[in-house]
Amino acid sequence: MYKDTTKLARGNNTQFSFEAPKPSPSDLPSTKASKVNSICDAVLEALRSRKKPNPQNIITANVCKKPPALNDGLHVVSELMQEDESLAERAVEHICFLVDVNRLYDHALGLYGLDLALLVAQQSQRDPREYVPFIQNLHRMPQLRRQFAIDDHLGRREKALAHLQALNAFEEVRTYTTKHGLYQAALNLYRYDEPRLRILTDSYASHLESNSKFRDAGLAYESIGNFVKATSCYRGAGATSWRECLFSAQQQTPALSGSALSQLASDLADALYEAKDYAAAATIHADYLDSVETAARCLCKGYLFSDAMRLVTLKNRPDLLETAVDGGLADGLSNSTEFLADCKAQLKAQVPRILELRRKAIEDPLGFYEGERPFGGGGGGGDIPDDISVAASSRLSTSASLFTRYTGKGGSVGTLGSNVSRATSKNRKREEKKRARGRKGTVYEEEYLVNSVRRLVERVEGTKDEVERLVFDLTRRRMAERARAVEALAAEVVEGCRAAIKEVWPPVVEDERVKEEGEGAEYGYRPVGGDAVLQDSLIARSVRQEPPTVSSFARLSILG
Amino acid sequence: MYKDTTKLARGNNTQFSFEAPKPSPSDLPSTKASKVNSICDAVLEALRSRKKPNPQNIITANVCKKPPALNDGLHVVSELMQEDESLAERAVEHICFLVDVNRLYDHALGLYGLDLALLVAQQSQRDPREYVPFIQNLHRMPQLRRQFAIDDHLGRREKALAHLQALNAFEEVRTYTTKHGLYQAALNLYRYDEPRLRILTDSYASHLESNSKFRDAGLAYESIGNFVKATSCYRGAGATSWRECLFSAQQQTPALSGSALSQLASDLADALYEAKDYAAAATIHADYLDSVETAARCLCKGYLFSDAMRLVTLKNRPDLLETAVDGGLADGLSNSTEFLADCKAQLKAQVPRILELRRKAIEDPLGFYEGERPFGGGGGGGDIPDDISVAASSRLSTSASLFTRYTGKGGSVGTLGSNVSRATSKNRKREEKKRARGRKGTVYEEEYLVNSVRRLVERVEGTKDEVERLVFDLTRRRMAERARAVEALAAEVVEGCRAAIKEVWPPVVEDERVKEEGEGAEYGYRPVGGDAVLQDSLIARSVRQEPPTVSSFARLSILG
Repeated sequence: MYKDTTKLARGNNTQFSFEAPKPSPSDLPSTKASKVNSICDAVLEALRSRKKPNPQNIITANVCKKPPALNDGLHVVSELMQEDESLAERAVEHICFLVDVNRLYDHALGLYGLDLALLVAQQSQRDPREYVPFIQNLHRMPQLRRQFAIDDHLGRREKALAHLQALNAFEEVRTYTTKHGLYQAALNLYRYDEPRLRILTDSYASHLESNSKFRDAGLAYESIGNFVKATSCYRGAGATSWRECLFSAQQQTPALSGSALSQLASDLADALYEAKDYAAAATIHADYLDSVETAARCLCKGYLFSDAMRLVTLKNRPDLLETAVDGGLADGLSNSTEFLADCKAQLKAQVPRILELRRKAIEDPLGFYEGERPFGGGGGGGDIPDDISVAASSRLSTSASLFTRYTGKGGSVGTLGSNVSRATSKNRKREEKKRARGRKGTVYEEEYLVNSVRRLVERVEGTKDEVERLVFDLTRRRMAERARAVEALAAEVVEGCRAAIKEVWPPVVEDERVKEEGEGAEYGYRPVGGDAVLQDSLIARSVRQEPPTVSSFARLSILG
Repeated sequence: MYKDTTKLARGNNTQFSFEAPKPSPSDLPSTKASKVNSICDAVLEALRSRKKPNPQNIITANVCKKPPALNDGLHVVSELMQEDESLAERAVEHICFLVDVNRLYDHALGLYGLDLALLVAQQSQRDPREYVPFIQNLHRMPQLRRQFAIDDHLGRREKALAHLQALNAFEEVRTYTTKHGLYQAALNLYRYDEPRLRILTDSYASHLESNSKFRDAGLAYESIGNFVKATSCYRGAGATSWRECLFSAQQQTPALSGSALSQLASDLADALYEAKDYAAAATIHADYLDSVETAARCLCKGYLFSDAMRLVTLKNRPDLLETAVDGGLADGLSNSTEFLADCKAQLKAQVPRILELRRKAIEDPLGFYEGERPFGGGGGGGDIPDDISVAASSRLSTSASLFTRYTGKGGSVGTLGSNVSRATSKNRKREEKKRARGRKGTVYEEEYLVNSVRRLVERVEGTKDEVERLVFDLTRRRMAERARAVEALAAEVVEGCRAAIKEVWPPVVEDERVKEEGEGAEYGYRPVGGDAVLQDSLIARSVRQEPPTVSSFARLSILG
């Protein structure tokens, strides 16, 4: 144990580097590769120090690396081609013996070495009519054009694009970029060539737009000052880009007509309202549509009553206090009251039911999990002595029937055959649906209810700020009686949540039970299909879960 | 185990109630109390069914309850007083024998029974000159006034206040409320009496104000329409109540002068800027101070560049794009770059040091924890075979010297005497400071560095949204080169954080180590003073900690 940790620590230390994420030490294959490579390097070093090294050996050492250093190997061949053709011949034979010849041909081409490529091609079984005209054609080209053709042929498109740039063939660059979607590479190449960058950005923007990447398209259009297109793309990006959209709209030349701007603003405000970003919707109504009333209503919809009150006074529309704001407060009150009443009803129904199910499961596990004996019926759970571990007894005596009951065919588990496994998978799916529904009376009911209570507590916690604002602002608007009512209801629900947390997630950690069930898994019974879902559910139940939390509800002292 | 759980579940089920949090079943004393009470009730039931019950028995059963039902006991006495004085005499003797007579006297008074109180008082050792004039005085009062006097005498102030209300003595109510701070009770009593509620709310508001509860005071003043006072209270509540403050200011009659409103708005904007609520500060500058430029600068300060751009176009100040907005972008860029560079440097320094410390602690625990042998020096860690458990060896062979080294006096542990314990506590404090500082070379260094890296990762995660906005908006303003630079730096830091998480919190759970150290604690050695701090630190280190998380940094495709 500690030996391993030492190694790990040592490895980590030398490998920690900020610049590049190197392979982690646990990545064993790459460690092996680096060992192989260091051996190869040592061999190469030794070979190089000899007076007349054997080219074959150098080639072997190079292509033995992981991944094979084919270019280095080919380099040896091409150097020999300058010095001694027969040696080169033998060297190329050797390398083609070691590595797939087609791969070598591509690599030779990639080094822009036409003679070398030809030499390699001759080692292959290929018909010379296949490659000779191609290589001859390349020979006739000027250097850059040839390099472009080779890289294009090899599918090294970004390299090919760079050659086109070097050829100063911008039209070709554009076509090639569009054809192969090389926008980012092209933008990088023309980073400092403002006019051409603009043209390429424009192509990129329309490419992004046609791929429904509206926000990026809008940014691209905006960055080249095409505000008309930018506006429409940002609009297409939905509610989140409303600021950029309105900015672009107002930057257009010729200026957007008033009615067009209003239409745009109105569409955006509707989208934001739909997306429940009421503050933003209100900003648009106040700033672009000159509708203080709608703005105030939006703010109230988002429980931002104090913003609404501030806005109507700022805009000198005190009449809206009694209409829009008080109306909004009334709506908020009725929504919150309804929500809190629902929560209260749900807690009242679900928490006792959870406790009832738990009690039944403990008192009469056979009846509970099998469902064959009535709960608490004569001769049922009453016969089981209390001091026998339930987990142990159910594992030993009932696990087979427990887990087969839900498949409906006792003998099928373990039988081979695709029909069975298809049935099993179907069964599993059906059982999973059953678990997700958690219908009353099934073994999944408790898990379902517990999750439901957790979600409820989290939802209550999430809406508490809103209710506190509602209470405060109702009091400001002299509706103390209503404020008191909703405050009392909220406090009651929060108290109910606390009680529920205590009941549903009691502080006692049931360590032993978890442990025993964990040991049970080692007995070798591995359920499949629907049984597996049941087991998952049982395991999920036995794992201790963190209870949700609920903070206390701050009551207004002025409400008494 | 399961027996207990069954009981718990049963208990919980019957006790789950929405309305009131009842005592939990684990609260044993109260369970005992309820048993006692049910026995007492059974006895009372049996006594009542008798033709001529013995009053003494009834009294005994009542005062035996927990808490004693003194009022019920006294009620028996007062009933007897109507029927048979001698019986009453005996009954009062009996009850005074069972319960403290002064307590009974207060209870009798609390029942507003003057004769009963007198009867009880006569059983006491008190001088009649003490209580007779008081009771005579009460006798002379009209009923409500007498009840007020009694409740006031007994300190039952809310009841006393209710009597004053029934007496319709509002001036007295006010005085009494203010004197005893009974505002909430008073507000509750006059809930439906609008004019008096206003007066009481006003007193309450000034009480809240003088206790620096400015927000509540503002609300109280606002709810009675005192907008001048409300404004000043909301202003006192600081930056968070700015909406309420400005609303109240504009609701004042006569209207607040323009310059006064500007001054207020300006103060609030400054407070919000200080509190880093830049969006709110910008709203005030734009809406109340007519300063689009300052508003834009505030928005940029909060990295809300797109809001700033939208605002300056909306307000028809495109000139501000190149000054305020671009300046804000440049400031944001330099702040973010500096922050990210700091993070990078910190990661580069701290992560390898953590790994180095861990390696040293494993290779040479004696040298590491004792600090007496140089790291890696001759005859140091090299002598310890790798396969010996370090936790075991350090526990068995070095724990004494290990833990005494930090006290500076080997023999003091376990010696009695206040001097020693004072020295121990001083030592503990000194050692705690040392742990918090985590200076280089101390045993606390690693823990300190790990916490420091965690904080860094969390800070990076927290600022990522800002950096993404910065990159996007730099690109919009055609500063792609700068955007690219900060984007690359941010991506590098995020990558560094990921690497650091892997290195500092490796995924292997060192279960065995934790277990062995846990067992070590049972050996009976309980360190005190500075040693305890060291042990805390060692335990904190062995507990598996959740690593912080960092999400990936979204790069803009347009930047290539």
